[in-house]
Amino acid sequence: MRLRIVLVGFGNVGREFARLLLERKSELAKVHGLRADVVAILTGRHGSVERAGGIDLRRALRLADAGVSLETCGHAVHVSSVDYLRRVRADAVIEISPLRIASRQIAVDHIVAALSSGMHVITANYQRLRRLAREHGVGFRYEGTVMDGAPVFNLFQEALRGLRIQSFEGILNSTSNHILSKIEAGGSYEQGVASAREMGLLETDPSMDLDGWDAAVKACLLVNVLMGGRLRPEKVRREGISSLTSTRIEAARASGRRIKVIARGWREGRTVHASVSLESIPPDHPLFSVDGTSSSLVVRTDMLKELQIVERDPGLRQTAYAIYSDLLAIRDGRLIP
Amino acid sequence: MRLRIVLVGFGNVGREFARLLLERKSELAKVHGLRADVVAILTGRHGSVERAGGIDLRRALRLADAGVSLETCGHAVHVSSVDYLRRVRADAVIEISPLRIASRQIAVDHIVAALSSGMHVITANYQRLRRLAREHGVGFRYEGTVMDGAPVFNLFQEALRGLRIQSFEGILNSTSNHILSKIEAGGSYEQGVASAREMGLLETDPSMDLDGWDAAVKACLLVNVLMGGRLRPEKVRREGISSLTSTRIEAARASGRRIKVIARGWREGRTVHASVSLESIPPDHPLFSVDGTSSSLVVRTDMLKELQIVERDPGLRQTAYAIYSDLLAIRDGRLIP
Repeated sequence: MRLRIVLVGFGNVGREFARLLLERKSELAKVHGLRADVVAILTGRHGSVERAGGIDLRRALRLADAGVSLETCGHAVHVSSVDYLRRVRADAVIEISPLRIASRQIAVDHIVAALSSGMHVITANYQRLRRLAREHGVGFRYEGTVMDGAPVFNLFQEALRGLRIQSFEGILNSTSNHILSKIEAGGSYEQGVASAREMGLLETDPSMDLDGWDAAVKACLLVNVLMGGRLRPEKVRREGISSLTSTRIEAARASGRRIKVIARGWREGRTVHASVSLESIPPDHPLFSVDGTSSSLVVRTDMLKELQIVERDPGLRQTAYAIYSDLLAIRDGRLIP
Repeated sequence: MRLRIVLVGFGNVGREFARLLLERKSELAKVHGLRADVVAILTGRHGSVERAGGIDLRRALRLADAGVSLETCGHAVHVSSVDYLRRVRADAVIEISPLRIASRQIAVDHIVAALSSGMHVITANYQRLRRLAREHGVGFRYEGTVMDGAPVFNLFQEALRGLRIQSFEGILNSTSNHILSKIEAGGSYEQGVASAREMGLLETDPSMDLDGWDAAVKACLLVNVLMGGRLRPEKVRREGISSLTSTRIEAARASGRRIKVIARGWREGRTVHASVSLESIPPDHPLFSVDGTSSSLVVRTDMLKELQIVERDPGLRQTAYAIYSDLLAIRDGRLIP
């Protein structure tokens, strides 16, 4: 099977995914019978380029790393990204452009254009466009949206069939968790934020991380996809580390506890709820030992009581792998988790 | 789809699975389009019975719980279980008869007979008969063999495509772990063993748990299925809690550590290895907080660094769910993990 892929966004994750495709090219062909050709790359800062026979990814990586335009990799694309996606001949669109808090997300326009044109979509951003994908009979997968490459949707939507999720709690925003670990190690809040910025962990708009937006979006996605909810992040009770006081940190430390940003989802009768809050948790809490950029999700179901997954010290490769595993899922006909 | 099922074994897990089938009958029909009829139950202690139209499971449960023969549920089966499986007209065999350490396992004979007759097999015992199943184009699934209903094979064989496992470490024998927790709480080794026996945790042959056999069998299964190994439990370096000394427990306690039975698998060049050993682990070890009958597996892969799954306080329902999820997988055509 040949999949002609359009990459929308060529930042850290997009480049890591390109490196992964190069590295595993022969494995994809031999083991999975898949030839994955990137036929276009659309970016905001490096221009947009297409090449029907497949773009030389090594060259694209060199150009992007050097901070110059990609357009010498093929033919420059001069129409808008949305218009381009409406007319391109390709099989799958990988939408990984940067996240914004805006009422109108360009990423959504990309996804709508791609799905409506009958192309599979893989994203590591947060969207809920499954119905549209189903109507068009194409794939829409988004494993990388929560906990990077750790299997969340793969696990609870596909592997664990026939069970009902009652509630979950998790540490889902690794930036906040990293900053909290820095503060516990003796740093100030400002030093923690600076360290997160240095490591490239902070979203372009720091409020996404520090005010709990990112965790709220993820909690909604989990509640909506896994528990049949219809929540929107704006409606979720939300507390981020920007509201943390040093008194509260000291009080937690003195009693052997730790402050964590906990995202929750739960049922009350027939409705589902979500929240993001700063909590002081004791040492026997399942999330107590989740440090630094690690993340974890504890899920309670009718069948399995409590199941926890922990992803330790993820890097770019982990998110790139989420996209890679989605690509293999589409190849296998597992279109929508 | 109708699946005619033969249950081999009707002990604790078999009965919990029967309760689960009764409880979810309408969900299976409506959501999954599956009618699961148990057409025969073969047991060592309660006799064997068949009924082509489906056995009344409520009645079978009442009889088994009362400790009397099941034969009034239908027609008594008088041939041996293996002979019966060679000639029965059914679609799937669920093999959950008790585990023995014997050179010749009757469970293997059951599975061979079923697979050779073209029936799918689900087991919560440990076997490696995937090649036979593949040759006959039928399902062979065994999610319940390791960590009860927590997804191990579902996760690493099916959900997480395209990655390579480098090593794992886990607490896989809940009986030993329960006894260790009792000892830490101030009990003696004998009291711990007695408590495990009371809770029905101890295998019929206690050496399976106490000498590390159960963990060794599970480590081999993981190494063989997930890492392409060909190990046998007898060849695995193995240490169980029967060799634990009070000096060693005291030394661990004094240094803030805990003694755990750790099962490992790893690669060395092109070969794979496994071991089961008593280890003294520090508080920052990922398995430190796994208490009582809980179990956990930490897996390192080329793609995901370290991914951990934790199953807390599992009960019979968890193992019954493993079988239930295997049934749904076979319904979906996912035949062999």
